[in-house]
Amino acid sequence: MPVPHPYWLRDNCPCTECRNPRSGQKRFRIGDLPDGLTATEAVEDAAGLHVLWSDGHRSCYPAGWDARDEDSGLGDHRTEHGKRLWEAADFARGLPEADWPTYLADPEERIAVLAAVRRSGFAVLRGVPVEERRVLDVARTFGYVRDTNYGELFDVRVEPDAVNFAFTDAAVAPHTDNPYRDPVPTLQLLHCLRNDAAGGDSGLVDGFRAAALLRAEDPEAFALLARTPVPFRYRDRTADLAAEMPMIGLDPRGAIREIRFNNRSIDTLRSLRGAELDAFYAAYRRFAEITLRPELQLEFRLGPGDCLIFDNTRLLHARTAFEQATGGRHLQGCYADLDSLSSTLSVLRRNTAALDELEALFAGEGAGEYLGEAVTMAEHMLQAGALARAAGAPPALVAAALLHDIGHFHGSGLELMAGTDNRHGETAADWLSRYFPAAVTEPVRLHVPAKRYLCTAEPGYFAKLSPASVHTLSLQGGPMTPEDAAAFAAGPFAADAIAVRRWDEAAKDPAVSTPPFAEFRPLLLELMG
Amino acid sequence: MPVPHPYWLRDNCPCTECRNPRSGQKRFRIGDLPDGLTATEAVEDAAGLHVLWSDGHRSCYPAGWDARDEDSGLGDHRTEHGKRLWEAADFARGLPEADWPTYLADPEERIAVLAAVRRSGFAVLRGVPVEERRVLDVARTFGYVRDTNYGELFDVRVEPDAVNFAFTDAAVAPHTDNPYRDPVPTLQLLHCLRNDAAGGDSGLVDGFRAAALLRAEDPEAFALLARTPVPFRYRDRTADLAAEMPMIGLDPRGAIREIRFNNRSIDTLRSLRGAELDAFYAAYRRFAEITLRPELQLEFRLGPGDCLIFDNTRLLHARTAFEQATGGRHLQGCYADLDSLSSTLSVLRRNTAALDELEALFAGEGAGEYLGEAVTMAEHMLQAGALARAAGAPPALVAAALLHDIGHFHGSGLELMAGTDNRHGETAADWLSRYFPAAVTEPVRLHVPAKRYLCTAEPGYFAKLSPASVHTLSLQGGPMTPEDAAAFAAGPFAADAIAVRRWDEAAKDPAVSTPPFAEFRPLLLELMG
Repeated sequence: MPVPHPYWLRDNCPCTECRNPRSGQKRFRIGDLPDGLTATEAVEDAAGLHVLWSDGHRSCYPAGWDARDEDSGLGDHRTEHGKRLWEAADFARGLPEADWPTYLADPEERIAVLAAVRRSGFAVLRGVPVEERRVLDVARTFGYVRDTNYGELFDVRVEPDAVNFAFTDAAVAPHTDNPYRDPVPTLQLLHCLRNDAAGGDSGLVDGFRAAALLRAEDPEAFALLARTPVPFRYRDRTADLAAEMPMIGLDPRGAIREIRFNNRSIDTLRSLRGAELDAFYAAYRRFAEITLRPELQLEFRLGPGDCLIFDNTRLLHARTAFEQATGGRHLQGCYADLDSLSSTLSVLRRNTAALDELEALFAGEGAGEYLGEAVTMAEHMLQAGALARAAGAPPALVAAALLHDIGHFHGSGLELMAGTDNRHGETAADWLSRYFPAAVTEPVRLHVPAKRYLCTAEPGYFAKLSPASVHTLSLQGGPMTPEDAAAFAAGPFAADAIAVRRWDEAAKDPAVSTPPFAEFRPLLLELMG
Repeated sequence: MPVPHPYWLRDNCPCTECRNPRSGQKRFRIGDLPDGLTATEAVEDAAGLHVLWSDGHRSCYPAGWDARDEDSGLGDHRTEHGKRLWEAADFARGLPEADWPTYLADPEERIAVLAAVRRSGFAVLRGVPVEERRVLDVARTFGYVRDTNYGELFDVRVEPDAVNFAFTDAAVAPHTDNPYRDPVPTLQLLHCLRNDAAGGDSGLVDGFRAAALLRAEDPEAFALLARTPVPFRYRDRTADLAAEMPMIGLDPRGAIREIRFNNRSIDTLRSLRGAELDAFYAAYRRFAEITLRPELQLEFRLGPGDCLIFDNTRLLHARTAFEQATGGRHLQGCYADLDSLSSTLSVLRRNTAALDELEALFAGEGAGEYLGEAVTMAEHMLQAGALARAAGAPPALVAAALLHDIGHFHGSGLELMAGTDNRHGETAADWLSRYFPAAVTEPVRLHVPAKRYLCTAEPGYFAKLSPASVHTLSLQGGPMTPEDAAAFAAGPFAADAIAVRRWDEAAKDPAVSTPPFAEFRPLLLELMG
């Protein structure tokens, strides 16, 4: 049976010879595939599609491997698709915002804020401490600060003899920052430290919405702005920055992807001549008119402690003039990038989904019998976690105690391979390593050897084992030889594994009340980093 | 007389009402210009084009304001235009390289290195100290380090159980880094700390050249790669990065602007169907074949202390496999960006051009009489600079002493306005402020008031003035009142201005030999930062 698109299919072979299973990185070059590649055999069954290739390689594509999810077709979430293009009235019931302490403590709140930046282009954090440099802390919750000639951060306040217009008390019309930079900073943060002058309100305009309106109202003007690179430039004593990019950047399929709009920084346009030059200026003025339409102006006031995060490739930002005589206005800003924000959002979602699966397993399979003990599997692990916590163990060790036996689960959601008694530590550690650092996974991996070690190294330990544990010990290889025990004790994580082992042994008391899994979620999520 | 392209011309009005003369930033919005703008009068004479606009504004465009320079048409230097597209044989006589100490000491060497990165896509610095983290110092000579999930810097060496292919001893085919990131890091630096294993040679391929070859040999394949966004992705425990961009990125006019080439990181391409999907893979394989052609492989070996700087949006980099058993290989790398590199290059060129002009003025007008003194203008200033230097003054004060009287020059190259005796400090300081910080300009600005101050504040000072200086004192306003003197002494830079004044007074000795201007160039250039 021939397969369609053989090179595409083969390029997606999921086997571990072709790919690193953890990163998804391919191990071969596209040119390593032979010319004239075809399928010699192809069989589809319930498990998936099995292909024997003409070069002898075998691929197995699990059923549904090519399924699309809700994000399919949105690419990297940088174009207009999948975004909420807005006008001011869409936020009549409030801005996308969160309280800073809640944002820090609650991953669902972090997800909501980062998703709002990606979808609506902005969010506001309230209650960020009114202290210098805190804006950098905000950026570091989802990414990396982008240093520029303005510094790691910049102060937006009135400066004597300002070279840059932003550092005066004048009104600033809706614009994007740093159009003269490529790569342009894709995110901007503005943290308000003081704002008690009359005026100085903030404004945002959805540049994608403005561009979409231009496309609908005057497609030729839109096309002209999209195809004309504009020379943006900024000079001061120590910088001479130049970028030549269109005001409306499109992806290769024609979707709106990036807005650069800032008349202050447009240098002399020399690439157009004759009627096209006049047509360009007419299109530019029309786009400018749209950006100033009242229904597009989202106006609000930043107070001390508010931190605005916005997409500088999409939103135009503005401020009204203010009167210096009436008070002060001081924002601290910094730049960061959307790719890291999206990565953080994806990892947060992946991690919370994994915790949901774990919680469901504790509630489902976990209610089952635990190897003949008087407690359930879930009660056993929750008790172990609670004992570690009560002992003041570091978070990674609490997590290891809590999760040490998940290798006994078979949950399809976890795609766990069934662990034999001898292997369940390995199985659990391998699965956990997708999410947790070695400080969690390695004590889990070693908690079975730790039992075998203690039977050899600690007089009286064997006598304390429960009957079920004595039974499994023989399946696990029995006590270690003295040589193996010495090697184990010298290895990394041995002490941690032994600690987990002791909580493991102690966590079989049917009289003890066990905390719910949910209590451990914040600790687990923090460790997932 | 009607003017062509009135909005374009008006948008370029150079007057200080329309623009900040220091940054070139415009002070108006494009929509502030009225509808139906026309010229009421337009007169062209030797000085330039004088326009009276229908809204009453007057613009004066100096003759030649729209002249193109050698860089015109190259935009921001990011496309194939103006670059040297190369094959390996083009470097048969050596790589673009420089010695690290020379690079640091000599701005012409810095200019050569940075220009090579922009034009050929790379350069090598030799003799960078073989110490960890020094690669960051290299990046900071022209820009800002871009932090990523790999850290501020990354170590390229064999890691146990590496998730990323780079951290093994395997050969790595020509590729660009981080195609799954947008904005992608536009520059990469690799600093060799150790390379004594067998193998582990470095390779570079000009991706623009490879793409240009594909365009020439198979225009349809080129067009398909240029118009198909490819889903690049990288996942590990703490990151999930995705960018959807074409392998060959074009600017809106169709010039090659950016290459992303890395099969390791290509996720499942879902946007094409049917024959187009097969055509895409055929085009991709053809492009891959070109990148591997022997004549395109520039191969060399990095030794300890070598630091390779290259354009990650253009060059593909590679390494041969190496044998761990035979020795170690350790590079430290970091990312940075081309926009800052270009800015640094422009500022260096601007600064060396300004020093050339100053040096020419010292040699030309400077040979003229100095207000009736027994030394020339140039001798006077050079002596003042030498006296400050001999006194151990900080560099800014040496520069101020050296340049304090340039306000007397009329050099057209400097576009200096003639300074009256009373104003020549101001004139010099205004001109110098384009290049120098306040620590240089303000003592220059205040060196005339400092004389008036000393006449009041210091008994016996007046008696020491030369006859010419007594004459000019009266033109400069005579001794300060006691109130003015107190205010002057309390102001910033007063002590520095007084120091300059004393060297000024002392620098009129025809018997003293004066150092040449060139001796001061490194100090001046360092201050220009």
